Amino acid sequence: MSSHTRIGSTFIGRPPRYLELPEGFGFEHGQAIRPFNICYETFGELNADRSNAILVCHALSASAHAAGKYSAEDEKPGWWDGMVGFGKAFDLDRYFVICVNLVGSCWGTTAPASVNPDTGKPYGSLYPWVTITDMVRAQRLVVEHLGIEKLRCVAGGSLGAMQVLMWASLFPDAVESIVAMAGAAAVPVEGVAWHIIGRKIIESDFHFHNGDYYDNPEALRGLQVARMVGHMTYLSQEALERKFGRRRRHGSSQFEIDSYLEYQGSKFSKSYDANSYVRIQAAMDEMDIEEIFGSLEQAFARYRGKALLISFDSDWLFPPTEVEKVDVALKANGVESTYMEIVTGNGHDAFLIDFHLITPPVRDFLTRIGVAVGR
Amino acid sequence: MSSHTRIGSTFIGRPPRYLELPEGFGFEHGQAIRPFNICYETFGELNADRSNAILVCHALSASAHAAGKYSAEDEKPGWWDGMVGFGKAFDLDRYFVICVNLVGSCWGTTAPASVNPDTGKPYGSLYPWVTITDMVRAQRLVVEHLGIEKLRCVAGGSLGAMQVLMWASLFPDAVESIVAMAGAAAVPVEGVAWHIIGRKIIESDFHFHNGDYYDNPEALRGLQVARMVGHMTYLSQEALERKFGRRRRHGSSQFEIDSYLEYQGSKFSKSYDANSYVRIQAAMDEMDIEEIFGSLEQAFARYRGKALLISFDSDWLFPPTEVEKVDVALKANGVESTYMEIVTGNGHDAFLIDFHLITPPVRDFLTRIGVAVGR
Repeated sequence: MSSHTRIGSTFIGRPPRYLELPEGFGFEHGQAIRPFNICYETFGELNADRSNAILVCHALSASAHAAGKYSAEDEKPGWWDGMVGFGKAFDLDRYFVICVNLVGSCWGTTAPASVNPDTGKPYGSLYPWVTITDMVRAQRLVVEHLGIEKLRCVAGGSLGAMQVLMWASLFPDAVESIVAMAGAAAVPVEGVAWHIIGRKIIESDFHFHNGDYYDNPEALRGLQVARMVGHMTYLSQEALERKFGRRRRHGSSQFEIDSYLEYQGSKFSKSYDANSYVRIQAAMDEMDIEEIFGSLEQAFARYRGKALLISFDSDWLFPPTEVEKVDVALKANGVESTYMEIVTGNGHDAFLIDFHLITPPVRDFLTRIGVAVGR
Repeated sequence: MSSHTRIGSTFIGRPPRYLELPEGFGFEHGQAIRPFNICYETFGELNADRSNAILVCHALSASAHAAGKYSAEDEKPGWWDGMVGFGKAFDLDRYFVICVNLVGSCWGTTAPASVNPDTGKPYGSLYPWVTITDMVRAQRLVVEHLGIEKLRCVAGGSLGAMQVLMWASLFPDAVESIVAMAGAAAVPVEGVAWHIIGRKIIESDFHFHNGDYYDNPEALRGLQVARMVGHMTYLSQEALERKFGRRRRHGSSQFEIDSYLEYQGSKFSKSYDANSYVRIQAAMDEMDIEEIFGSLEQAFARYRGKALLISFDSDWLFPPTEVEKVDVALKANGVESTYMEIVTGNGHDAFLIDFHLITPPVRDFLTRIGVAVGR
């Protein structure tokens, strides 16, 4: 029995909700924002013993809107609608799915663009630099608020996968299983370098003003170009060749890839906030589980759940070897971990595209967890 | 007998010379610059029958200073000193080597930063958009000026290799052999995309003013960051891991890769001109031998010389498959072409680093050419 109305392959879900923290949220780096609201959405129904909850963690620019539509008029469903839904990998006939908007993100959680009640202006440059630990702690507050002691699974791709690994490291007793794809314990140097370049592009925008640009109504060109850099890191060489090659736009000397990058940059700059972008991406680059816990083995030493780790062969942001390292460390701790490298031309973005490839292993994995916990 | 004094592994060469064109140089796109000077250097001695001349073509940011030092005090020798010198692959005991500063470059040839005699100010935005054909035509003028009808070899790496292929296409009768490494008939889309992003970074610099920025004494931040993008395309993933990994600078939270990129960007912006950078890089992206000649086979249909083509396995700007395509087209025309893929972790930059790997095949190839032409 579900409160969701199905439409086509998706459904009408619930509006976002907010966990209000009147006492504020304290950031890992020491500052606090008060009051602080954490935006989240839930999908499907929590069962009586609160044992069917799955947390899905979103990546850089997404939101708590993981699946479904708010109304039939919505053009697109949530960001992981291919995976979360009735009969899908995270099956809403069985599971209660939660998604929390990241600390630092501009999609509902108190953000750099939110108005600081002390000044009546957006926080801008005053908003703290966030960490993945901050994000995971905020998710934990929502999960506790919903009365859930133990999550059946924490799942995500890319930055979402990094949060998944942080959950297993920080709150091992709260997690029965993890599903991490296209992500690892730290971003390798190639990705870090491109991210740093992207942030330099934003920060050198004449109108950025160290993050206090909210009185300027124009889109930040720096954000547009940084997004183009980001987009490139999601695309495999094969996908670039297949989709664009050296083709020109019809009747124009402009390369199709140029037109595509401009479109993506422009679209992004209209919907996403530059301060959120630089903070969340910097948090991604700074996270390094080996550095924090001494080693991967130590990070997962207390984790007793199960694990499914998926890499994509054409993903050069998180190459398969990086994902495999996590599998090795989990197994060294006696964790029942499954690692698979999926062959696809879609690069890093495969976790948002190749649902036919990632659904079977995720579904099988969750079934096994269900059997293991007797449900 | 040579007029060069040897010092250590290099030598003291001759100062740059200039081919002065008082009537100006007409660009492929229709404009002209008058007067126009083409800067070039020569190394070693031209023999009596003018049959030992080799043209080496430089890449994006280099100059006519291919080898040697101007004086013993110079910190560094020319850009291909590892290949051009006494006893080296392009052996100055045997060959007379010419290198011409590219049309559009700011190293001596009349450039965007040169003063326009009509206005008393730098050409800036008025300087034409150049093509690889312009560059090759200017080289041809220098070669003819030196009284050379036929070059023993035209050689280069990266953008230099693209000029080499254009020579074989445009002036097949003037070339006995070509050596092209880390370059192909067109830049594949991944490189084009990064180049385009780099140019967008420069063009969106608030101080760039469409290329008329010469009254601003400050270095262009956009050029610095664009150079960082360029630098990334020269590095393989392996080289990034080996040289930097996720290491931080000693006593700092800054990633070493960040510090390295800043250093490279800053150094470049002090010595190179942004207008030259965008023009030469755009010319590189626009060159497409298949597009110009209909097919690679047609492009090389009149070429009767020999060819040595070298790719590097870790070069993702010009992947081996792109270089091999040229070999296939040459062979289809009956050209004696040798193709080799060299295994190295040094990526695109291998042609400037791995002299121990590229010297033997180049030396052997030139020896064979010498035997073939009876010299």
